[in-house]
Amino acid sequence: MMTDTEQDLYPSRQKPRPEWLERRDPVVHGQPGQEPPVDRELIDQFVRDGFVVLEDVFSPEEVKALTREANALRERGGLIPESRISERGMGGADAVRSVFAPHRQSDVFERLAADERLSGLAQFILGDDVYIHQSRINYKPAFRGKDFYWHSDFETWHTEDGMPRMRAISMSVMLTDNHPHSGPTMFMPGSHMNYVTCVGETPNEHYRESLKKQEYGVPDGDSLARLSKLGGIEGPAPKAGSVVVFDCNTMHGSNSNITPYERINAFFVFNAWSNRLRDPFGNTQPRPEFVAHRQVKEPIRALKTLPPFPVGGR
Amino acid sequence: MMTDTEQDLYPSRQKPRPEWLERRDPVVHGQPGQEPPVDRELIDQFVRDGFVVLEDVFSPEEVKALTREANALRERGGLIPESRISERGMGGADAVRSVFAPHRQSDVFERLAADERLSGLAQFILGDDVYIHQSRINYKPAFRGKDFYWHSDFETWHTEDGMPRMRAISMSVMLTDNHPHSGPTMFMPGSHMNYVTCVGETPNEHYRESLKKQEYGVPDGDSLARLSKLGGIEGPAPKAGSVVVFDCNTMHGSNSNITPYERINAFFVFNAWSNRLRDPFGNTQPRPEFVAHRQVKEPIRALKTLPPFPVGGR
Repeated sequence: MMTDTEQDLYPSRQKPRPEWLERRDPVVHGQPGQEPPVDRELIDQFVRDGFVVLEDVFSPEEVKALTREANALRERGGLIPESRISERGMGGADAVRSVFAPHRQSDVFERLAADERLSGLAQFILGDDVYIHQSRINYKPAFRGKDFYWHSDFETWHTEDGMPRMRAISMSVMLTDNHPHSGPTMFMPGSHMNYVTCVGETPNEHYRESLKKQEYGVPDGDSLARLSKLGGIEGPAPKAGSVVVFDCNTMHGSNSNITPYERINAFFVFNAWSNRLRDPFGNTQPRPEFVAHRQVKEPIRALKTLPPFPVGGR
Repeated sequence: MMTDTEQDLYPSRQKPRPEWLERRDPVVHGQPGQEPPVDRELIDQFVRDGFVVLEDVFSPEEVKALTREANALRERGGLIPESRISERGMGGADAVRSVFAPHRQSDVFERLAADERLSGLAQFILGDDVYIHQSRINYKPAFRGKDFYWHSDFETWHTEDGMPRMRAISMSVMLTDNHPHSGPTMFMPGSHMNYVTCVGETPNEHYRESLKKQEYGVPDGDSLARLSKLGGIEGPAPKAGSVVVFDCNTMHGSNSNITPYERINAFFVFNAWSNRLRDPFGNTQPRPEFVAHRQVKEPIRALKTLPPFPVGGR
């Protein structure tokens, strides 16, 4: 529950009609004059569009080691309970959709999160020390990968997790070559500058289980159509080893995947150290630790990764 | 049921394992030396890939008239019973997925089917008089358009409808601009040269209703992966007024559509007059007349369409 000193700058799920609220936070918090760790024009693109693709960040050897570990996590015993999620409507080990908190369950992914190519860039963009708010390995199966509806991550992280400000970014490390038709993540360029509130009061704890999750945190169709007119819809299909960086408030989603091409990526959310979680602004119970990290002792210390990743898991 | 003189060249759903059978029919049946009604290189592309996109076939005015009529059909009373199909899992008039047999239910679409830009090209490719085996208006809704799994139309038309030979083509007239991410039809180039049989006996009539449709006529994953290696996967996104022509045996399907862009197309299957339907080769009851036409008295007479389409429906 909020204290007097905490103000809800981004209220959502409180009114019967959606609203467009002003973004109160910069997209890049880096200090003036500070040199970015990537080309300046990539930063400019990120500021304008709310996402940017960095190509050839990780070498084929690194991708191979990461993929081996990602595949091992699908079947490894002793994971945090419930942190391995199966494709909805499907059973069996080969239908794993996500493994949450890989950086806490694998030395390889702990190392990857700290890799300065990721964490160093996050420090620059967020202008602060950083830590991992959430991480996942996403496996979008071939033939029967399901769609994922449009959403702003920040709307959920603010309302359900208590993230106060827009000072977090996501980085998705591609472990497989993406194909334009394998259900890549689609972005609405420019959408990150507009905070579209969702409709419906957050239900009391008592009623939560009886309600379908997708009724909450889903933007309305009119707002999506308007947002898509700002800059269209883009669905980049980068090669393995690329990194897609996107702002916490960029509207994104993905279609299904009936192609024979599986998609795997390692996904990390970097949050500014000064932006750590409070109580959820939706006044619900916080989500589990493996979905939204609260027990974080210190910021990430950025590491140069050569020599290459350790082999084998924790 | 087959007579002694009818041979099943393309048996499917009869064996416990899928097979790749040789295609016994040419892709283009036109007479040697005959001039095609479109550029020769488009015909060559069709022969090689099993599909081709013809751009700017219909004018913006024609598209406007066709779209008006397509939208009217969503709500028009007195249609053939069951010929209007709703998006699965959705209700309401705005969730119409298809209207079957529009060329029998609307003067405008009857005229479109006969338009020589379609029927004349069909006559050339099939080297015969032609008639409509099936037609549909397809409405893929924005935001919640569902995916459509991979299939060869011919496998179904042969097994369930009794179409003897591969001597039919589909033409899809785009009534809206397609977007690369609005769930366009994807094709596997070169797949039309291979007939992949599906697994599982056709069930007895008695059991049919208790079994899910998708268990029949669905190609196996290994075959799909192999087919996709022949020429990749392409998902053209043509503008309104374009026509996509594809062979009856080209493997195709589409992903879901969460974009704000609705997709509408008018779809016609032209069959060679000499290739009219027999009893289904799967020994099941024939499907309803509005899905697979048997009551056809004479071939289409190709029409020049100017002056433009009549306004209003039947």
